[in-house]
Amino acid sequence: MTQNNELAEFEAVFRPQINAYLHDNIPRDVNESTLAEAMSYSVDAGGKRLRPLLSLAVLTTFGQAPTEAELRAICALELLHTYSLIHDDLPAMDDDALRRGEPTNHVKFGPGMATLAGDGLLTLAFQWLSDSDVSTDKKIQLVQALTRAAGPSGMVAGQALDVENTHHRLTLPELRTLHREKTGALIHYAVEAGTILAETAPSVRDGLLAYADDFGLAFQIYDDILDVTSSPEKMGKATQKDAAEEKNTYPSLVGLAESQELLDDTVSRAKEHLIETAATFGFSPDLLLAFLSYFG
Amino acid sequence: MTQNNELAEFEAVFRPQINAYLHDNIPRDVNESTLAEAMSYSVDAGGKRLRPLLSLAVLTTFGQAPTEAELRAICALELLHTYSLIHDDLPAMDDDALRRGEPTNHVKFGPGMATLAGDGLLTLAFQWLSDSDVSTDKKIQLVQALTRAAGPSGMVAGQALDVENTHHRLTLPELRTLHREKTGALIHYAVEAGTILAETAPSVRDGLLAYADDFGLAFQIYDDILDVTSSPEKMGKATQKDAAEEKNTYPSLVGLAESQELLDDTVSRAKEHLIETAATFGFSPDLLLAFLSYFG
Repeated sequence: MTQNNELAEFEAVFRPQINAYLHDNIPRDVNESTLAEAMSYSVDAGGKRLRPLLSLAVLTTFGQAPTEAELRAICALELLHTYSLIHDDLPAMDDDALRRGEPTNHVKFGPGMATLAGDGLLTLAFQWLSDSDVSTDKKIQLVQALTRAAGPSGMVAGQALDVENTHHRLTLPELRTLHREKTGALIHYAVEAGTILAETAPSVRDGLLAYADDFGLAFQIYDDILDVTSSPEKMGKATQKDAAEEKNTYPSLVGLAESQELLDDTVSRAKEHLIETAATFGFSPDLLLAFLSYFG
Repeated sequence: MTQNNELAEFEAVFRPQINAYLHDNIPRDVNESTLAEAMSYSVDAGGKRLRPLLSLAVLTTFGQAPTEAELRAICALELLHTYSLIHDDLPAMDDDALRRGEPTNHVKFGPGMATLAGDGLLTLAFQWLSDSDVSTDKKIQLVQALTRAAGPSGMVAGQALDVENTHHRLTLPELRTLHREKTGALIHYAVEAGTILAETAPSVRDGLLAYADDFGLAFQIYDDILDVTSSPEKMGKATQKDAAEEKNTYPSLVGLAESQELLDDTVSRAKEHLIETAATFGFSPDLLLAFLSYFG
């Protein structure tokens, strides 16, 4: 079986499980009907479920089929990711009307309810981590790791840097910091959550996190390139917005050709980290390698 | 010593500790300077610190001086409370320009940064709970309790109900649900956090939570009454906004006189719960009773 077939089969098993878990379980923890509708609206809008799939891929790589408790803890990350999209799209932030081909949350429910839907999903993420039936030790490790990744020392700091520096050109190292926090931190956490649940040794975890960090960087460069080269129909959201809004992106800083080169280098580095770690510690890198096909 | 003197002395010791802890520790966990400024701006604006003081009062009632670790866990609640005020004041929500006598967060930093300051404080609350040096068991109990109180089954549901029902008259039982979730849930948690940290027996906890729930209800009735009878100068925020915006309040539903009666009854019930529990289990109710002087 080729790597890509392995990935396709993995996704065919787990993406529906993630979707069903989210669809069935969000309404159970929400006490107000419009709020429940608004929270489920954005979560059920789909998406690749890349982050929970990465956590599940780490578990699977170490031969573990996820339990129901682990699925709950892993799906918490998709709640958190969706909150960040809803707040990012708000009129007060990027003011986007379209996401995944559908009206954004605030277009559908108004900006007040959309703010609350984001607040609700963010808090529910920590609820699912803390009330899932994984061990107390693992729960507290997951909560700690997610707060560091998603909070004011991670993702929220990256978003603030983005808001502060629109209309102001960053240097390449500054842009890298912005993206490491804004996008990289949650992908780092996705892999970290897998290693916490799989109880991997610290040195295995470090190797996997190096892969995760290059994955996160590649993800953002790729997204910046797509914003220039793709169409709204293909992306399900507005494109070429970055340039219009003078956002800091790789193509705007170093041009399209060099961005593509940077992307290729980053993906190669992710591969090397993974192959080396897998060879040293004796596990198969195939499934996690296959995730790099995301970048073409 | 009268009860009120005991409260004044208690506040004189602990309010400065809370203020100093918040002021010194927020910037350490924020990686972006404007975000750090925006988060500290609203937290440092002051306020009574009622919620963390209630947690500390429960600890003190059982003879325990708070450790540094407990103070961190307890101050997390003030981060969470402040996030709720910042988001509540946003143009997309209540659109308030004044809070505690100062410009609201979005007036000072813009609505995008204010949204992020709230998101950052909410996430940081769970960070402080999970990385404080209290036991792992207590940490996970605190995280679970706070997510239930503050999330889509608690405070956020109450806020959604409020947004949904402005310009639409609620019944008294519906208004009670709204307030139990919107205001009561965090006061419930404040007392619950104290009982978790003090490791009180379940029956003591239940008695204290009954006191907490009446305290929370009284708090909201009192706030509604003040909105009608007080001045902006005294309150540090706009008053008589509720009526102008057709918000559901006790005075608008049952009139001022009956609201005052409801308040008196609720405060009496809180007293009874506390005195009964204290007599049964042999602790002094004085400090927690003194908190009821808040309602005049």
